[in-house]
Amino acid sequence: MFIGIDLGGTTIKGGVVNSEGEILFKKVIPTNAWGETNEIVEDIISLVKALQEELSKEALEVIGVGVPGMVTHENSYIETCANINLSKTNLKKILEREIGVPTFIDNDANVAAIAEYEIGSLKKYQSGMLITLGTGVGGGIIINNEVIRGSHGIGAEIGHMVVGENFYDCNCGRNGCLETFASASAINEYAKKLLRDTSEDSVLRGKEISAKIVFDGARTGDQLCEKVINRFAEYLSKGIVNFINILDPEAIALGGGISNAGEYLIDLLEEKIKEDLYTQDAEFAKLLLAELKNDAGIVGAGFMAKRLKNKLFIN
Amino acid sequence: MFIGIDLGGTTIKGGVVNSEGEILFKKVIPTNAWGETNEIVEDIISLVKALQEELSKEALEVIGVGVPGMVTHENSYIETCANINLSKTNLKKILEREIGVPTFIDNDANVAAIAEYEIGSLKKYQSGMLITLGTGVGGGIIINNEVIRGSHGIGAEIGHMVVGENFYDCNCGRNGCLETFASASAINEYAKKLLRDTSEDSVLRGKEISAKIVFDGARTGDQLCEKVINRFAEYLSKGIVNFINILDPEAIALGGGISNAGEYLIDLLEEKIKEDLYTQDAEFAKLLLAELKNDAGIVGAGFMAKRLKNKLFIN
Repeated sequence: MFIGIDLGGTTIKGGVVNSEGEILFKKVIPTNAWGETNEIVEDIISLVKALQEELSKEALEVIGVGVPGMVTHENSYIETCANINLSKTNLKKILEREIGVPTFIDNDANVAAIAEYEIGSLKKYQSGMLITLGTGVGGGIIINNEVIRGSHGIGAEIGHMVVGENFYDCNCGRNGCLETFASASAINEYAKKLLRDTSEDSVLRGKEISAKIVFDGARTGDQLCEKVINRFAEYLSKGIVNFINILDPEAIALGGGISNAGEYLIDLLEEKIKEDLYTQDAEFAKLLLAELKNDAGIVGAGFMAKRLKNKLFIN
Repeated sequence: MFIGIDLGGTTIKGGVVNSEGEILFKKVIPTNAWGETNEIVEDIISLVKALQEELSKEALEVIGVGVPGMVTHENSYIETCANINLSKTNLKKILEREIGVPTFIDNDANVAAIAEYEIGSLKKYQSGMLITLGTGVGGGIIINNEVIRGSHGIGAEIGHMVVGENFYDCNCGRNGCLETFASASAINEYAKKLLRDTSEDSVLRGKEISAKIVFDGARTGDQLCEKVINRFAEYLSKGIVNFINILDPEAIALGGGISNAGEYLIDLLEEKIKEDLYTQDAEFAKLLLAELKNDAGIVGAGFMAKRLKNKLFIN
């Protein structure tokens, strides 16, 4: 049995997870987003204690925490944490002292990839990657059962691969990052640009733009929406072919809000990927939809911690 | 003791290598580049037999062959082989039958990366990559002692990562591959374009263009050469930052003819990479010059075979 904690800017979700990845007990609390570090840490400790009451002390093997930020792999130290006041915090040490159970912390994108790899879309594969297409583009890479974490805590910032030239810069300071072409924000930005720069009629005019209504518009034949989605798919497939050429994973799962476009998205991408492959007719990574939704963060954090504990034990 | 064979379009090099990576005996024969498959195979068998005479049969543990092409990892089958008539050949099976020693075959870029990792510039590091900057751009990736070979034989075609938009297409059919910005051919193409499109004076005018004379020109202040080398460095550093953001290796070694530009090249790249990093002031991959030159193919092939034999033995 393990406890998985999913730290987010809005809520902190916790769950008791068994070795099949089932959540036996779950509790969600609001994130004290503007709170002091010690207040947030207190909230996390209370949450873990509440979860712990649901199982015997002996049954709890390990605690895992997924955070939206950079974590130093060797000591689970939180270097940076987006939207929550936990940067430069040794949450691992605090939880181990308070709870008395081995605790491991990792980036939430790695945690989500581990969840897909253990019990989701990537379960059947030795090597796979998860690309999450949300407000930004993130993800994780697992090759032959090893999570690619990198040597300086930078690794698997896959949204920050430059794939072309764009009309606006990325938050990271570069121009042309995959995130600026293939995220929900990227879809919104380009739709707004077309609405601004052209007089083309569209179902989008006068509406508040979201990736969902642009996708819906494209599906029903709105030409401006089609242009936006085509550009999105063109650059996302450029990025995917880059990953295929560099890492050649067995399977690639697409997650995040945009993956709700489902098979329509997969079909759009597969067609473009095939055109761009290095060796035509070669087999290439299976393109899948991520299977785990809201609870992936809890389950993945638990499995992440279990994997790291076992590894420590082996070495 | 092992035998390493380096298959090239011009020569086939073979050597007897000890476990420190020293070549104890070496023999080079011309490649029968337009020959029939069976003629080339005969040449390779004769070469191996000549090398084998230099050591006792018991002393020979394994034979390794590096080929310029795609090799199916599981069975060492040569799928494609550039400039040599060995595509779709089971050279492993033939050599094992003729010589009676376990034989493994791998792509020459992986082999070169293994050589650097075992006894060259990457020796001190757990995770590293080799980027060879020659006529094309190739290389290999090794993470925590594992060579990233990919699941469908495509992996580590690192020159075919799209990083921007270019004025000419790549051989692979895409536009914007790293190879079209950061190879010797790319330097030549862009220098020719500037000479054609502008009337700017330059030491290049009237000469046969090569990457070397463009580098030499840039070092001595020729402005047109500086433009060419700046563009080369800009895109190569974009590519390197992509690798850092995706894989975050401990070290990156630069090999191939262009790496003869030495520290001048490293300084040029480091400056641009620092500007582009996701997290400013973060530590990032150490940038190195590859150490092994002409014999890397022989030594690497030997180590590759040794690694694969040991792995087979363990699993």
